[in-house]
Amino acid sequence: MADVDQAADAAVAAAASFEAMGRAGRAGLLDDVAEALEAERESLVDVADRETRLGGTRLNGELTRTCFQLRLFGDVLREGSYVDAVIDHAADTPMGPRPDLRRMLVPVGPVAVFGASNFPLAFSVPGGDTASALAAGCPVVVKAHPSHPETSRRAFEAMRAVLPDGVLGLVEGYEAGAELVNHRAIKAVGFTGSTAGGRALFDLAASRPDPIPFFGELGSLNPLIVTAGAAAERADEIADGYVGSMTLGNGQFCTKPGLLFAPVGSEGLRSALADAVSKVSAGPMLNGSIRDAYQAEVTRRRNDARLTLVAAAEPGPADLGAPALFAVAAADLAGELLEECFGPSALLVEYRDLDELLSALGRLGGQLTASVHAVDGEHEEIGRLHEELRLIAGRLIFGGYPTGVAVAWAMHHGGPFPATTNFGHTSVGATAVRRWLRPICYQNAPHAVLPEELRDGNPARIPRRVDGVLG
Amino acid sequence: MADVDQAADAAVAAAASFEAMGRAGRAGLLDDVAEALEAERESLVDVADRETRLGGTRLNGELTRTCFQLRLFGDVLREGSYVDAVIDHAADTPMGPRPDLRRMLVPVGPVAVFGASNFPLAFSVPGGDTASALAAGCPVVVKAHPSHPETSRRAFEAMRAVLPDGVLGLVEGYEAGAELVNHRAIKAVGFTGSTAGGRALFDLAASRPDPIPFFGELGSLNPLIVTAGAAAERADEIADGYVGSMTLGNGQFCTKPGLLFAPVGSEGLRSALADAVSKVSAGPMLNGSIRDAYQAEVTRRRNDARLTLVAAAEPGPADLGAPALFAVAAADLAGELLEECFGPSALLVEYRDLDELLSALGRLGGQLTASVHAVDGEHEEIGRLHEELRLIAGRLIFGGYPTGVAVAWAMHHGGPFPATTNFGHTSVGATAVRRWLRPICYQNAPHAVLPEELRDGNPARIPRRVDGVLG
Repeated sequence: MADVDQAADAAVAAAASFEAMGRAGRAGLLDDVAEALEAERESLVDVADRETRLGGTRLNGELTRTCFQLRLFGDVLREGSYVDAVIDHAADTPMGPRPDLRRMLVPVGPVAVFGASNFPLAFSVPGGDTASALAAGCPVVVKAHPSHPETSRRAFEAMRAVLPDGVLGLVEGYEAGAELVNHRAIKAVGFTGSTAGGRALFDLAASRPDPIPFFGELGSLNPLIVTAGAAAERADEIADGYVGSMTLGNGQFCTKPGLLFAPVGSEGLRSALADAVSKVSAGPMLNGSIRDAYQAEVTRRRNDARLTLVAAAEPGPADLGAPALFAVAAADLAGELLEECFGPSALLVEYRDLDELLSALGRLGGQLTASVHAVDGEHEEIGRLHEELRLIAGRLIFGGYPTGVAVAWAMHHGGPFPATTNFGHTSVGATAVRRWLRPICYQNAPHAVLPEELRDGNPARIPRRVDGVLG
Repeated sequence: MADVDQAADAAVAAAASFEAMGRAGRAGLLDDVAEALEAERESLVDVADRETRLGGTRLNGELTRTCFQLRLFGDVLREGSYVDAVIDHAADTPMGPRPDLRRMLVPVGPVAVFGASNFPLAFSVPGGDTASALAAGCPVVVKAHPSHPETSRRAFEAMRAVLPDGVLGLVEGYEAGAELVNHRAIKAVGFTGSTAGGRALFDLAASRPDPIPFFGELGSLNPLIVTAGAAAERADEIADGYVGSMTLGNGQFCTKPGLLFAPVGSEGLRSALADAVSKVSAGPMLNGSIRDAYQAEVTRRRNDARLTLVAAAEPGPADLGAPALFAVAAADLAGELLEECFGPSALLVEYRDLDELLSALGRLGGQLTASVHAVDGEHEEIGRLHEELRLIAGRLIFGGYPTGVAVAWAMHHGGPFPATTNFGHTSVGATAVRRWLRPICYQNAPHAVLPEELRDGNPARIPRRVDGVLG
């Protein structure tokens, strides 16, 4: 295990030659990383299951996702439009002669990535942050999550074996994390975790002598809104879909829908929800402290006079977390009920009318997602909900559920604080690479100095904007 | 004069309908704003000259620049690729079925803009920050700079007359600035000014309960490097060009080249520089406190044992600032010599060899620009300088001077801290609009909810990426 200085210095030493590999070279490397991880699939899934108890199906899915994402970034690199190449040839303008200007995005330098507890293979040593940063051309130092140290080490070894020296580093321990964020070699940070932990690291990054961007994904309640029409027409279907989403991974997803808004008096929906929750088994939690925090929050909810229990699954052995759904009047949704509860508990928020619903939504902080279940003809409801939800959420889902964040060109996984610390960017999907890039402009540069992407004749064969025209 | 709450509340109230005007509607408005400013050209230039003493030629140029920029953003809006529209139709993937996903950039909401002392018409109430934010669809509240209050008010009145209610607000005073950055309605900040002032406001923005992005342009030394070959071949030309750039606007430009690196023993260049400096007249400073700070720094430099005076212009009346060039050995470039001096003073930094030059450059913070003057055949010098300079600067200039920041699609005006607080973005050029936008993703959305830019058949006729293919 390297210490922070060693890993950061190695990253600095590797940066120039890693960038110089170019887009095609790095695309090939990302394919190699995917192959190396797949070659270790069985042992990685085994050790991850031992450390997290997420189960083989889920963990195999995570690894498949990670490899798919590595290859998608390979496509992003080969296509090349992500460098946002712009060329303005010298010209006369109303302000006088303008020089030759050529702009593109280049890697920011070494970045730090904090592994998450809940995705040992998809938001950890391997995963979206690491893959996008490597794609961008940035060496990465990962801070391993203490929930799955052995998984982190094995994945690191598999990846390091196919990467140039210094391009990937691994450090462990709370102190190492803070040291990393403060290290002068580190130019940006990716983080997935709790609001408290993420905020503390964000504050560190912002208070450096040279502040650096901190791309943190913290807490999100992911409200799901059921209209009167949908509650009447599709109560059973929505109850099953909602409870499935809320209890996926035993509620330990950043996109768990923690708030279900439904009209007061939706008895059919409420009883279908109770039925669905009671059918789910208690499941393992990622670690003891997450389990304890979850149990404490459920106990608090049971004792909260504003809440009534709709249904709870059988508790099972003490080390499991059991799903529990509570109901609350929309007017009472405030205070700690507006904070994420990590685990399979959620709130059925009952609203009297659209105004009360919109008012409650207006009290929420930023969200990764917001979902709407409505029926044809509810134009006013859909229109006003859309207007409100787009202000607070990064992804708007219609007739669906927020868990299952597709890796795609069009995905956006982000949102206003506290969903993320930087609402302008995403941690999933092709555009995640933009976090690790910065623009640079060449003025009247000799051709030999220019990167291939900015040379006359477009030898890199990438989409570019030349004299204002995209082509 | 509105207070902060009034202006911010009006901005919130205006946001939805301003966005709903659409790209074409806002492009038309930007043209209207340009016309309104041009109609007031004479009176704006008069009052700005009274308040800043920048002179009619320069101030007319500023207004022309601002109007050009407003119209460029009109082009950006009409072309539409800046919304970065991406559509992934529903498909089967190795991870299972993927829903229909459609992503684009939308306005972040009301933004605050801090006017600069040195550009009353181009980085103030009118200017790049305001123009780009309005283009993005964000209402703007400007904090006027105290150096030119009447210019700010007149420009504000001219612009407000053609803008919808609440889309542009103006506040004054130090307290109002801090209040604005802390105001919950404000979603992002644009700032141009000193490192100390900008850092204080950045810290405020970062310490909000919901931190917001702060796009500040602070201090930059803009190193200009002369190689041995260029010093031998083009001493007179470089001396004239350099001193012209260093004393433009009496040295009160963010891109003033404050450091000229030249080989030890470049006597021809040194005497040509002395000659050029002594021919420049002392000129007016923007205000009394800037004048006092400049004079104090020149006095400090005169008493600094590491420095020798190369040349100083005649001091002239007490309210003027006189150019002064000092020489220092590259090895001594440290401490306060690495901080921007606002005004027409600069340092000739004499280096013994390329290694000493690179070592000195490595001690600099982030820079808006870096310029290289070399001659054909100096491949090693150019290559190694390029490698070092691209790490620290946002714009690399070859054979030229950094003042005169062209408004163009390919311009990048930004750089690592302290040049800016956010190296991923620019405050000049077409891509400046990206600061005021955030991505949003629609999943399985009804067609009626989708913005025009994301609808099937591309009714907005903009460049989009559909199923991975840019078209």
